[in-house]
Amino acid sequence: MKTALVEAEKGRYQTYTNPMVGAVIVKENQLIGLGHHAAFGKEHAEINAFNNVVQQEKIKGAIMFVTLEPCSHFGKTPPCCREIVRRGIKEIYIAQKDPNPLVAGQGIAYLEKHGVRVHVGILAAAAQKLNRFYNFFYLHDYPFITLKTAQTLDGRISLTASHRTYLTDELVFNDVQQLRADYQAILVGSGTILADNPLLTVRMMNLKYPPVRIIIDRRGRLINTYKVINNDAPTWIFTENMKMSQYFTNSEVEIFFKKKWTLKEVMQRLAQAKIQSVLVEGGARMQDAFLERGLFQELLVYQTNQLAGGNSLAAFQSKRSPQKLLDLKIVERRQVGNASRLWLRR
Amino acid sequence: MKTALVEAEKGRYQTYTNPMVGAVIVKENQLIGLGHHAAFGKEHAEINAFNNVVQQEKIKGAIMFVTLEPCSHFGKTPPCCREIVRRGIKEIYIAQKDPNPLVAGQGIAYLEKHGVRVHVGILAAAAQKLNRFYNFFYLHDYPFITLKTAQTLDGRISLTASHRTYLTDELVFNDVQQLRADYQAILVGSGTILADNPLLTVRMMNLKYPPVRIIIDRRGRLINTYKVINNDAPTWIFTENMKMSQYFTNSEVEIFFKKKWTLKEVMQRLAQAKIQSVLVEGGARMQDAFLERGLFQELLVYQTNQLAGGNSLAAFQSKRSPQKLLDLKIVERRQVGNASRLWLRR
Repeated sequence: MKTALVEAEKGRYQTYTNPMVGAVIVKENQLIGLGHHAAFGKEHAEINAFNNVVQQEKIKGAIMFVTLEPCSHFGKTPPCCREIVRRGIKEIYIAQKDPNPLVAGQGIAYLEKHGVRVHVGILAAAAQKLNRFYNFFYLHDYPFITLKTAQTLDGRISLTASHRTYLTDELVFNDVQQLRADYQAILVGSGTILADNPLLTVRMMNLKYPPVRIIIDRRGRLINTYKVINNDAPTWIFTENMKMSQYFTNSEVEIFFKKKWTLKEVMQRLAQAKIQSVLVEGGARMQDAFLERGLFQELLVYQTNQLAGGNSLAAFQSKRSPQKLLDLKIVERRQVGNASRLWLRR
Repeated sequence: MKTALVEAEKGRYQTYTNPMVGAVIVKENQLIGLGHHAAFGKEHAEINAFNNVVQQEKIKGAIMFVTLEPCSHFGKTPPCCREIVRRGIKEIYIAQKDPNPLVAGQGIAYLEKHGVRVHVGILAAAAQKLNRFYNFFYLHDYPFITLKTAQTLDGRISLTASHRTYLTDELVFNDVQQLRADYQAILVGSGTILADNPLLTVRMMNLKYPPVRIIIDRRGRLINTYKVINNDAPTWIFTENMKMSQYFTNSEVEIFFKKKWTLKEVMQRLAQAKIQSVLVEGGARMQDAFLERGLFQELLVYQTNQLAGGNSLAAFQSKRSPQKLLDLKIVERRQVGNASRLWLRR
């Protein structure tokens, strides 16, 4: 199963809304086939593993290890379960059940009904972590949200709210690029666009499905000249200003208008659009709004050895008076360029 | 010399304004004597090392290793240099010159003049670090200043400015107690007294010379009922309110009145009083004033895995608009209780 998990990882950045999956075929204690889901819309891991077996006659009576429950439905490809039965696999080890309601145990039921011996749960935690966004999304019908900040030792993100202060170096920049590629959406408030004019794209990799750039611009302050208004990736603007639809008539931008958007409603709208994961990159008030509502699963902090002090802008800053502290659990700490990178979860 | 440094460390918390010093006597590659300066006013390390030699006749012609230049002046004890010459030490290894102007090379000169072979500088960095407050004080005629904060992940020290929020656990409390014992003064603003009502003492150890409690209370807001007004340690109040001298007529408190105190003047006044080291413990505005003026050598941060957000109180907060970031160098990071303890220097 470990081999299958390593194999699954090869699909990273390519599977889009599909999970990463790896499959291994074993006959008489020998590995005879190996496959992974390589890209959205392409063959599933199981089928690739079958195709990679050199002596196809060996498949009959073999054992399969797969990191996710094989699918039982006709999607972009025919169901893997049928193929597994048809090829004569006698026993299958599955790391985790597929939470997608289109599968959700039906794959396992089909296999058992057709005489395949099924074992579920081996290395389940590792498999769940591999597709943590996918799993969370199908369990909660809600996107997995990560807040990301780059801050000084005293928790400040900029000397002033109106202009960006560069805190981190190129290694951190590259790390953030890599991070973005894992998400289906990057979210910022309009203030971040006005102060930083960022591209919010993944420049290091050529992604077929780059993360959607989500901008919350209630008042409708954005104009066409900002860098984010281009075709490098989809740009969705959530606004409460009805004139925005008339202003952004070019095809690059999709406007989501509602008289009043709560953050929860924005997230629900993203879930409807099958967005499984959102990386919130700022600014201070936007992050604080997510914090106030407890709307996140993870926090990623790039902390530098700098002090700003005074009235400089804090990472989670607004006019609200917080009533309590939120305790987080540290998952990992490591040095990335000039920053200590802390990865925490709720 | 390593043995001498370990020996010197035994005097910690007892030597007060004196440095920690260790001495080792070696004859024919055998360690024959070991001594340290055990307490302020007591024998110096060299004398203790002599006294600890079992076969006193072996001292003549021996080699001495000492972590600090032996003294050449009559202070609370007669000069060690004379004793070293009198006892017939033929060669001496000295880790560092004594920056105290009462010695400052005169010890070395005396020894050389009297035929002792002198080597200076072996493990000098370690020796300088051991007495970094003492060394800094005599080099700069100014106290060594450390800023200390206990803060959340987002750099906040309290949910509100008027009341204390407890962030850290008992292990951190104990660590801070230990830390305080290393300093000759603990400094806070009057706001910290009003909000927290702390004792600002070292409760874990029975110190003969506990750190002086320095309170900057420009407006004169303190009254007799605060816990810090007791005899557990000296309390010095720096104020611009002339009525404070009339109010605090009890013996526990010393009032330093001036129509206008700058922080630099307060520090110069402490240097006059031979205070070699100051630990600044808060609050937000006081820390920010030290940061603004660049008045510190080290920063110690206890950072918890909590988020506060909103308008909660930041570690270095004031109304000033900072113009630039201050870069620090990390010396050490380690986990203490529920906090990650970061030790940084300018």
